[in-house]
Amino acid sequence: MVTLLHTINTPGDLRKLKLSELPEVCAELRNCIIDTCAENPGHIGASLGVVELTAALHYVFDTPHDKLIWDVGHQAYAHKILTGRREVFHTNRKYNGISGFPRRSESAYDPYGGGHSSVSISAALGMATAAKIQGIKQQTVAIIGDGALTGGLAFEGLNNAGAMQSNLLVVLNDNNISIDENVGALHHYLMKLTLSARYNRFKTKVWNVLGQNAVRRAIRSISATVKQVVFKRSNLFEAMGFRYFGPVDGYDLPYLVSVLKSLKEIDGPKLLHVVTTKGKGYKPAEENQTDWHAPGLFDKNTGQRIKVKGMPSRYQDVFGETIIELAEKNERIVGITPAMPTGCSLNLMMEQMPHRAFDVGIAEAHAVTFSAGLAAQGLLPFCNIYSSFMQRAFDSVIHDVAIQNLQVVFCLDRGGLVGEDGATHHGAYDMAYLRCIPNMIVSAPMNEVELRNLMYTAQLPGGGPFAIRYPRGSGVGLDWSRRPFEPVPLGTARKLRNGDHVVVLSIGAIGNEVSKALERLAAESVAIAHYDMRFVKPLDEKILHEAGRKYKHVVTVENGTVLGGLGSAVAEFFTANGYLLPVTRIGIPDCYIEQGTIAQLHAECGMDVEGIYSTCRKIGKLFGK
Amino acid sequence: MVTLLHTINTPGDLRKLKLSELPEVCAELRNCIIDTCAENPGHIGASLGVVELTAALHYVFDTPHDKLIWDVGHQAYAHKILTGRREVFHTNRKYNGISGFPRRSESAYDPYGGGHSSVSISAALGMATAAKIQGIKQQTVAIIGDGALTGGLAFEGLNNAGAMQSNLLVVLNDNNISIDENVGALHHYLMKLTLSARYNRFKTKVWNVLGQNAVRRAIRSISATVKQVVFKRSNLFEAMGFRYFGPVDGYDLPYLVSVLKSLKEIDGPKLLHVVTTKGKGYKPAEENQTDWHAPGLFDKNTGQRIKVKGMPSRYQDVFGETIIELAEKNERIVGITPAMPTGCSLNLMMEQMPHRAFDVGIAEAHAVTFSAGLAAQGLLPFCNIYSSFMQRAFDSVIHDVAIQNLQVVFCLDRGGLVGEDGATHHGAYDMAYLRCIPNMIVSAPMNEVELRNLMYTAQLPGGGPFAIRYPRGSGVGLDWSRRPFEPVPLGTARKLRNGDHVVVLSIGAIGNEVSKALERLAAESVAIAHYDMRFVKPLDEKILHEAGRKYKHVVTVENGTVLGGLGSAVAEFFTANGYLLPVTRIGIPDCYIEQGTIAQLHAECGMDVEGIYSTCRKIGKLFGK
Repeated sequence: MVTLLHTINTPGDLRKLKLSELPEVCAELRNCIIDTCAENPGHIGASLGVVELTAALHYVFDTPHDKLIWDVGHQAYAHKILTGRREVFHTNRKYNGISGFPRRSESAYDPYGGGHSSVSISAALGMATAAKIQGIKQQTVAIIGDGALTGGLAFEGLNNAGAMQSNLLVVLNDNNISIDENVGALHHYLMKLTLSARYNRFKTKVWNVLGQNAVRRAIRSISATVKQVVFKRSNLFEAMGFRYFGPVDGYDLPYLVSVLKSLKEIDGPKLLHVVTTKGKGYKPAEENQTDWHAPGLFDKNTGQRIKVKGMPSRYQDVFGETIIELAEKNERIVGITPAMPTGCSLNLMMEQMPHRAFDVGIAEAHAVTFSAGLAAQGLLPFCNIYSSFMQRAFDSVIHDVAIQNLQVVFCLDRGGLVGEDGATHHGAYDMAYLRCIPNMIVSAPMNEVELRNLMYTAQLPGGGPFAIRYPRGSGVGLDWSRRPFEPVPLGTARKLRNGDHVVVLSIGAIGNEVSKALERLAAESVAIAHYDMRFVKPLDEKILHEAGRKYKHVVTVENGTVLGGLGSAVAEFFTANGYLLPVTRIGIPDCYIEQGTIAQLHAECGMDVEGIYSTCRKIGKLFGK
Repeated sequence: MVTLLHTINTPGDLRKLKLSELPEVCAELRNCIIDTCAENPGHIGASLGVVELTAALHYVFDTPHDKLIWDVGHQAYAHKILTGRREVFHTNRKYNGISGFPRRSESAYDPYGGGHSSVSISAALGMATAAKIQGIKQQTVAIIGDGALTGGLAFEGLNNAGAMQSNLLVVLNDNNISIDENVGALHHYLMKLTLSARYNRFKTKVWNVLGQNAVRRAIRSISATVKQVVFKRSNLFEAMGFRYFGPVDGYDLPYLVSVLKSLKEIDGPKLLHVVTTKGKGYKPAEENQTDWHAPGLFDKNTGQRIKVKGMPSRYQDVFGETIIELAEKNERIVGITPAMPTGCSLNLMMEQMPHRAFDVGIAEAHAVTFSAGLAAQGLLPFCNIYSSFMQRAFDSVIHDVAIQNLQVVFCLDRGGLVGEDGATHHGAYDMAYLRCIPNMIVSAPMNEVELRNLMYTAQLPGGGPFAIRYPRGSGVGLDWSRRPFEPVPLGTARKLRNGDHVVVLSIGAIGNEVSKALERLAAESVAIAHYDMRFVKPLDEKILHEAGRKYKHVVTVENGTVLGGLGSAVAEFFTANGYLLPVTRIGIPDCYIEQGTIAQLHAECGMDVEGIYSTCRKIGKLFGK
């Protein structure tokens, strides 16, 4: 059966349809997203919420001449399907498939890419400003979630856009949730706006008038009246120099279309507050929005999520339980996460010790500076941030924590390649950008027990800034729960295997791949030594001196960039200390790695068992048996 | 003559005085600051503006039990003088003297240190939250300038503080200027608040009532009324969950004291809007606030600034004139600075090409993401950010510019050690944190002409992200103005000197010190080769292969951390390519370098002429003549 959706290869095709046909298109879009995501997991919740909004935007605006900039691009599935990528949507987030986020390299309809939140207003302001300079008449639209609005960058963008009076429309997609529950004063403020009686009054009466008058001057005077009379509360955005419109129902298509058409005629910075529901139109996703943010595989008919069975605990589980265990004994410990309580498992502590665990919302720099404040007053914060998001708090790490030598423990989840989220989300640079900071300790555990012991060590009295990074996904299956802690002496490696001429120095969980590779080589009588370095900083100099004296070739393996990380630290050490031996660095190469399964990406980088085996074999063979 | 000020060794002494004696103390404080800064340059403008506020805060609050957290600590000179540092204030910003900013290590009255802006609310919230957990009853006060409020971190702090209902007072020191004129919608908003007729009405009537009622419940009900009736416009902060009070005159001491006393009795997050004048009480500083932010030496009687004569142009001058010259020919070029137009000399372009040069206020991440937006629409932004502030935009550099491979030119002023501003302001890490980013070109010019040529090269068609970092201060005195441009082939070094066994590879202006050192060694018949690498990334591999083959020892010299920068890149290259030779890395060591003159700090790091000479001599002698 040829559906309406199958006739739409570009938004131009959509714009040929009658307004009355849009609901059918939206129903088909929604089915397409649900069908596809059931078999090929993705960020279903956010995208289901904005199906109608997406259709309305492409219906009203002349894309790709007009620019749509999607904040946290995972809300853009309907956008992808409507803009020529319907046929390849089943490859979403797959190796060599399309990206789960907008990408400039993928489509002319993606004028700006990205996967981190809160960037869209600044980016759209740049594009609108450039268009003005270029004398191009275009509409520039940023679509940003209410969760993303708590990020400081979004505020910086609002503050500048309001002052510059560029022609910019910010669509606030207010779904009342980011991944976990939203937090912050702004959230309450938006709730109040939405819940006020004025919402309905506005919706049914005033906009109808507005929609019937396309003449700009008329609209301006009407809308000014509307705002003054109806929306006294809205001047948070008015204070920022924006004209505020809304809130409007994100599922009333004729209404949305009419509002957007009117807004096209109004110059300057304006904000349209649209109320949506995450997971809209798919009951299980609406009912449990956090779990259905990115639910993995599911049965679309029953709504049952298909859990992969028999996997060991994830590193995040170890973190989540261990911080509680430590906090039970050390009353100085508190936990902080910027909007990832479920993702990093701090939600466990938030439930058990609500006064000692804080979700600060999408606000990474604040999470770190807030932690510094807690530490300055004598508490001991464990601040858990995904590695790639920690990039947003880099200055806070240096300026607020490290220079003051405060005891803050950074638990960096999602260190290394993260898989399907791709280039924007890989935690590739953390060891490099943290290692150059004085006073920092930078560590990475090879397994669950090591993670626990590093966490234990980091909170011992007299410590300073201490980073522990670990990967996304499962551990190796050790029995770790409530096992006794052992302190890890700072800057000490673990010897895992003896060898003859070649030694592998690895950091973190990728060391398990090394172990398997060297096991195979040992079976071929190539004996290669192996140390789990545990610390990128401080380095275990005793072990390195020994390695420098004893071996003829060093291989370093890290699930991070090969520029500036462990391999570089080792190269620095040897060349500075007169050990003249080659160092082969295995890790993430100096290019962007796209999406795929973690296994596929490790293979691409030559840091799966096979890749490590092959590199080590070649080197081992140089020295005969 | 024993003045009042000389009787104050701690704030406790201040609190023993009568309220009527405070104006005298403030007059003496102001004189002390002017006298001292005339002979020992510092940030006079901001500190003069808050003399009365500082006295009032210490008079009302029980410091150091109560905590004062100064945002951008250079407003804290009066605070330092009142808190036991009067006798050492003449060593302010000097080598081995006291820091120009609050430092935890310096005084119990500095509970939180720092020199970067916008951090105080998050830090204070952390301290207030910790006090609550600890069961300590204390007042926590963040004093933040209106300029600093444009930084996203300040907003993240406000948003969280408003929601958490901690006992926190934010004093908004509204002096209507940061270093240059303030920008952004918020600035206009605060202006409106201050200029409104309500300011005076509030000031003369309502607070008098409030001041006479110390009972908390009464104050609450009164202040609620006050706000509703008088301050409809204030709900930007109300929306953030704060109770807003003000604006109040920052020079009416009895009034300030009475307001602060009242606010002590009100729980929860509250913001007091205080209006001050930068440079207050010293006419030249009031009249020209940008120049007198940090005026250098001056004659306190005449108000004449004492210019150091005969110095070559500064690198910032070269940038400021060259971007105009390039923009005249390349219409795609635009300029962006986050609040440093005078400091980086983009003010020249802002005057000549106002539609193509943007000061976005203190908002570094926005500056970069806005630049990415401009580039995504086809313009070619030169984004000028001080190196240490670029740390705040690290994720924007990766996520918005580099992953999308957009042609944005980053001009990093104040790269390397900056002198008197000390640890928080040194641009120590830029080469390390930028080098690990794929697609990035990372360069540093050795002189004015090289800076021009790198800027020219960076804007040639088809380029990508391109960083050019250069130091604070003067160039070498070359004749550069309007000289013809020459493209610099990417990743090419310049050979400056031949040698026998040892080669020095330097990056940036520190190479001039190397030249002088090697000149001296040549006179002693120690011939050491020298290359100006120009690029940390891409490396000149041809030269490195040649060096690897020809020399027996390599010395790298960079005005940046020795962890992860040029030296590491070179060590990576040699160890990866089988050149087995030692690498000695000269640069900023892995610790925090405090304040002093640049010459003193270079000497401390062994990267002045003497230090380089001595290290190279030792190495050169190893190989005989």
